[in-house]
Amino acid sequence: MELDFKKMGGLIPAIVQDVNTKEVLMLGFMNVEAWEKTLKISKVTFFSRTKSKLWTKGESSGNFLHVKEAFIDCDNDTILIKAEPQGPTCHTGSTTCFYNKVETIK
Amino acid sequence: MELDFKKMGGLIPAIVQDVNTKEVLMLGFMNVEAWEKTLKISKVTFFSRTKSKLWTKGESSGNFLHVKEAFIDCDNDTILIKAEPQGPTCHTGSTTCFYNKVETIK
Repeated sequence: MELDFKKMGGLIPAIVQDVNTKEVLMLGFMNVEAWEKTLKISKVTFFSRTKSKLWTKGESSGNFLHVKEAFIDCDNDTILIKAEPQGPTCHTGSTTCFYNKVETIK
Repeated sequence: MELDFKKMGGLIPAIVQDVNTKEVLMLGFMNVEAWEKTLKISKVTFFSRTKSKLWTKGESSGNFLHVKEAFIDCDNDTILIKAEPQGPTCHTGSTTCFYNKVETIK
């Protein structure tokens, strides 16, 4: 059970789910360093593709995602983190980043 | 609310969550065609990066993911699909692809 960063060009998608409500909160990408820091400090840390640096979610807003459990998928290229959110996850103030519902579903 | 495929190099991560149990089942990538087909047939359809073609989950196993709701995140680069799974989602026979727990969480 080793994450296959190489297959993914260095960046693996990491889903964050609320450990209590089971709501999916956000998705970000992690490189090896982001993943190792996430495990070390128990706060979700991504690699920001726009800023090209590590980004611990909440470092500016205070709205950290405290890691409670983590899972790796069957082909070792996706991470699922169950976390306890400190405050709203989305920068818009919403609990989750997934608040835009697609209305075209039959 | 328009998915920004361009920003993502043509491929957007799509999380699939069980609409009833709220368990996260799998993650795949969609290009424009996969997203449009998913909406059209109401079955989760990915773009297979290994096979370079559309892949409707369940087309060989019969274990389709029937789309019930879909959401787009705040910056239009991730999809969350709430689906009703027909059978186990993982090719290993597991309900979810996320069955490998990381044991190093403090």
